[in-house]
Amino acid sequence: MGQRMTTAHIPGSGNNLDQWYGHYAARTAGLAASEVRALFAVASRPEVVSLAGGMPFVSALPKELISGAIERVMATRGAVALQYGSGQGMPALREQILEVMALEGIRAGVDDLVVTTGSQHALELVTKLFINPGDVVLAEGPSYVTAITVFKSFQADIKHVAMDEFGLIPEALRESITQIKAAGKTIKFLYTVPTFSNPTGITLTWERRLEVLEICRSNGILVLEDNPYGLLYFEGQPPHAMRSVEEDGVVYLGTFSKTLAPGFRVGWALAPHAIREKLILANEAAVLSPSSFTQHVISEYLDSADWKGQIETFRGVYRERRDAMLAALGDYLPDLSWTTPAGGFYVWVTLPDNIDAKSMLPRAVKELVAYTPGTAFYADGSGRNKLRLAFCYPTPDFIREGIRRLSTVINGERELLNTFSQTTALPVMRPETSMSNPPANLG
Amino acid sequence: MGQRMTTAHIPGSGNNLDQWYGHYAARTAGLAASEVRALFAVASRPEVVSLAGGMPFVSALPKELISGAIERVMATRGAVALQYGSGQGMPALREQILEVMALEGIRAGVDDLVVTTGSQHALELVTKLFINPGDVVLAEGPSYVTAITVFKSFQADIKHVAMDEFGLIPEALRESITQIKAAGKTIKFLYTVPTFSNPTGITLTWERRLEVLEICRSNGILVLEDNPYGLLYFEGQPPHAMRSVEEDGVVYLGTFSKTLAPGFRVGWALAPHAIREKLILANEAAVLSPSSFTQHVISEYLDSADWKGQIETFRGVYRERRDAMLAALGDYLPDLSWTTPAGGFYVWVTLPDNIDAKSMLPRAVKELVAYTPGTAFYADGSGRNKLRLAFCYPTPDFIREGIRRLSTVINGERELLNTFSQTTALPVMRPETSMSNPPANLG
Repeated sequence: MGQRMTTAHIPGSGNNLDQWYGHYAARTAGLAASEVRALFAVASRPEVVSLAGGMPFVSALPKELISGAIERVMATRGAVALQYGSGQGMPALREQILEVMALEGIRAGVDDLVVTTGSQHALELVTKLFINPGDVVLAEGPSYVTAITVFKSFQADIKHVAMDEFGLIPEALRESITQIKAAGKTIKFLYTVPTFSNPTGITLTWERRLEVLEICRSNGILVLEDNPYGLLYFEGQPPHAMRSVEEDGVVYLGTFSKTLAPGFRVGWALAPHAIREKLILANEAAVLSPSSFTQHVISEYLDSADWKGQIETFRGVYRERRDAMLAALGDYLPDLSWTTPAGGFYVWVTLPDNIDAKSMLPRAVKELVAYTPGTAFYADGSGRNKLRLAFCYPTPDFIREGIRRLSTVINGERELLNTFSQTTALPVMRPETSMSNPPANLG
Repeated sequence: MGQRMTTAHIPGSGNNLDQWYGHYAARTAGLAASEVRALFAVASRPEVVSLAGGMPFVSALPKELISGAIERVMATRGAVALQYGSGQGMPALREQILEVMALEGIRAGVDDLVVTTGSQHALELVTKLFINPGDVVLAEGPSYVTAITVFKSFQADIKHVAMDEFGLIPEALRESITQIKAAGKTIKFLYTVPTFSNPTGITLTWERRLEVLEICRSNGILVLEDNPYGLLYFEGQPPHAMRSVEEDGVVYLGTFSKTLAPGFRVGWALAPHAIREKLILANEAAVLSPSSFTQHVISEYLDSADWKGQIETFRGVYRERRDAMLAALGDYLPDLSWTTPAGGFYVWVTLPDNIDAKSMLPRAVKELVAYTPGTAFYADGSGRNKLRLAFCYPTPDFIREGIRRLSTVINGERELLNTFSQTTALPVMRPETSMSNPPANLG
């Protein structure tokens, strides 16, 4: 092994572009850059209608509510807000988070909570605590893209479980568990976004929630319930959180990123006692404490503003945008199929079988519209003819124009494929193209 | 392996207090709570003079400077500051960080920087990128306590390298490397706080910096240079950063926690190209992006305030406190030895050989003074007769009173030990005591 270290540094060995090639941990191989990353840089130009990113529309938040909260924090407890805080998070804020979660049927104690740097960091910390290389994580297929990234970065073996319009299919979950156990592998947890899922917008029914919990309980599998969108409903309240009926077997993740603002990076984990104790230690190792300043600002905002009314405002904004997107899909792409979310940020579109959404993306960006290809939401290469559309950020007019542009691209793709399939015997699937170097014939 | 998972859930197996015992990753065993944690909760009572924690004295920062910066951010770019940001951090802030680092002789490009959630998170991410279980991390002995926690949490094998009053001893470093290589182990990096070290306050001389860099370069060992205190000097500027003379072999960590305020959680890593690319991906996986809001506030502060003048103010505050601590040590504990830091936050005290600083801590807290026992700064149980005193937070009067109380405790301990050693043949080392349950004879 000493030899291995030495040879990696002999000039000419390893990778010429990286003197430290060969020194990285095994897990670092899982941290590949997204293939569509370069393209998204292009897609952020103002003339492109981006239906790709899941940025909340923070402009719907009255700035004076935030400014006022900050002023009061600085006037009354500036020195505390500027200082290091507790690794578990500020007690007063944790009390307030209990009120937020009560809206989704969750009862818990203030000690059961850990405040994190966005719920993304809770996801990272839970994964760090549980995953040995090769351990299985069960996840909906499709699943949140950056959860997949986190699991891979700790060398998890991600197994997708099929879903339908009612969410995760319990029978598919049972079969997966049986197969994985038969193969001698260890399942550490089920990761799920049961309400207004990212990327599908689908919600797991109440009956299935109970069934999924029972399956996991009887198989000794922890449930990691990620719920960023639950309060952003458009058609009445969705089923209560899974955590509302199961305390010992669920780690629940929440966030202020969608109901307030992501720029503060404040989320939380609600976890059974022993797990929560370890989460605090992991949080302290990773960041010492989450930002005292942004915690104080959010706490003051919750104390002084009509935060429930503000969430109602957000619901109205996103409902209008969802309606605009569904109407435009009906008008411009009537023969495709898509999900009809009752809340959240996303619509999941199924293209004709022979269209590859990732290959099509450079042409879409050329037509000034962007989306996220379906393959991003699977660890196993599935989802080639799927794409995710986010209606959260652009205004309804831009959403309609974006869908119009998208229809031009999709219809052009169909014509091209029809021409090929009628005149030649060559495979109709187009080859993968490098995003940063699109082939000349794309124009 | 499927069996292992199942058996962990048979009632009565594993740990009764934790249904998930047996499910954690192997690395989680390294995340033990500090033995002095419970005691520090007691030590935070206002009547205790705490010389334990390294909290900067943020009250020396005029609040209106921060309030003004926040007001301008909200007025001019509130919607951007409240939104998700880049995983690498805000470009304008990275430009400003280059100016901060130039004060310590560092020249770099804005693309070489990654903004992190405090430099603690940079430490976590670098460790995640490099450390396989069993890999060796070289670290000064003694070394920063939460760096040790991070390394352990990724199952590193921490090997301390001896230091003297001039810092890390190059000859000891050479010998360590030879021994570790001979044992067939892989050394991933050397972690060092070369300027005003935590916990000793010692600074590595310029000549030794060059020698240490040369040793690491010729052995293919990356240097992780952690520099939170470099700008807080009391006797003229310390040697330039190691990164100022070595670009490819150093990852440099910096922070605004000590020169501005830790409550914002903004630090950074400056890394060679290939490492930096991986750091960005790891940062995105862990937190999506560091807080836009706190980055914007710091950027506006740096743009509008006399931040160099403010650092000069901090230097004055901490110089006065260091002087108060050294004077009190001379007056109350003249026969002990301690370091004389030329900057930073800490003095490192050596007790008589037969006094155990960790065993003595409950008595100190009873006498209303707290410190950090030396063993916290070693991964191998060394440092029993050492302790760290922090002069950063209490005022000079409280520092003096704290040292007076400490002298009472130490002198009482000495008398007790002398009595025992004169009258009995029993071992003079006192047994380890549980911090949460001090033995009755301590009173």
